[in-house]
Amino acid sequence: MKRTLGPLERIFPMPCVILGAGPVTEPSLMTASWINVVATAPPTIAVGVRKIRHTLKAMEESSCFSINIPSTALADTVDYLGIATANNPDIDKAHASKLHFSPGAVLDVPLVDECPYNLECRVTQTLDLGVYTLILAEIEQTHAEERILVAPDSDVVDIEALDPLIYIAGAREYRAIGSAVGPAYTIGKRFIG
Amino acid sequence: MKRTLGPLERIFPMPCVILGAGPVTEPSLMTASWINVVATAPPTIAVGVRKIRHTLKAMEESSCFSINIPSTALADTVDYLGIATANNPDIDKAHASKLHFSPGAVLDVPLVDECPYNLECRVTQTLDLGVYTLILAEIEQTHAEERILVAPDSDVVDIEALDPLIYIAGAREYRAIGSAVGPAYTIGKRFIG
Repeated sequence: MKRTLGPLERIFPMPCVILGAGPVTEPSLMTASWINVVATAPPTIAVGVRKIRHTLKAMEESSCFSINIPSTALADTVDYLGIATANNPDIDKAHASKLHFSPGAVLDVPLVDECPYNLECRVTQTLDLGVYTLILAEIEQTHAEERILVAPDSDVVDIEALDPLIYIAGAREYRAIGSAVGPAYTIGKRFIG
Repeated sequence: MKRTLGPLERIFPMPCVILGAGPVTEPSLMTASWINVVATAPPTIAVGVRKIRHTLKAMEESSCFSINIPSTALADTVDYLGIATANNPDIDKAHASKLHFSPGAVLDVPLVDECPYNLECRVTQTLDLGVYTLILAEIEQTHAEERILVAPDSDVVDIEALDPLIYIAGAREYRAIGSAVGPAYTIGKRFIG
């Protein structure tokens, strides 16, 4: 038996990442869950950002930003970056978070050292979606800690080593990744006669 | 120590849903992981769909589609819907999948009965992203099985009851949701003096 709940802005699950923009010595940071890949060739990211966010201004001014994927061990810090400005709009979140930053390899973006996976993105298009702005951006470089790769010469991430933070809308809780269900492009073959 | 991996179109984790469009008696279905909420007021979805997909044509012709969130028990079927057409472009995936469909409450979309959470979406904008089309759509209604809600009168999903399927890019594997890490908008307060 199903119930109708109205037009809720929820999908399950969502990632939970740190966006960074501006100077590496004074980066602007925010937490984002409304983000995903939407195209390849070129690899394109879509992310919805509330217009009042300082980080959005930094993203638009520099036309680039970083996506930093945290492990669950960083959950408190990520949560702080999502709520800090509401408590004090003038706070220096980057300093208070005690995170460290490195410059991008190809773009002028701040990469969060403590996040094991980082993307450098160049803004290609912005769309006005009312209270939100939709940013479309091309992924130009990826950085990953060696320890989270399945092999030294592989670009494939061992998801349990990355241990990414997951956001659950509605329940407003963070979760870890769970057990393996099966290999994609494989387990459905039993339907193919 | 970090390594650069090049411009990879990966974020961790991604959801894994079934998109449905066209007549409820003969729906067109596909698996999608490049999807997320991107705005509220109105609640807006962004989804990247490969242009060659039959389902994209049905989405554009009817200007609406459903998003159907499966549990991990449906992983084989979801995987099949992602690989079937490559093996046989003329196959009737909806029939072969043995899924059942109900009409939307507000839009002419096929809802997958076997998925415990369904969204009805109206296409508001399409963008050409090369090999992919980006669809922006407004969420107009949500349906959820009573058993996956935290309380009978709540719109909040119990994520363990939903047991959503998760897609891991690169490793090309499906995962389940894992253990609770902490409450959002709460665990970061320790940084706020």
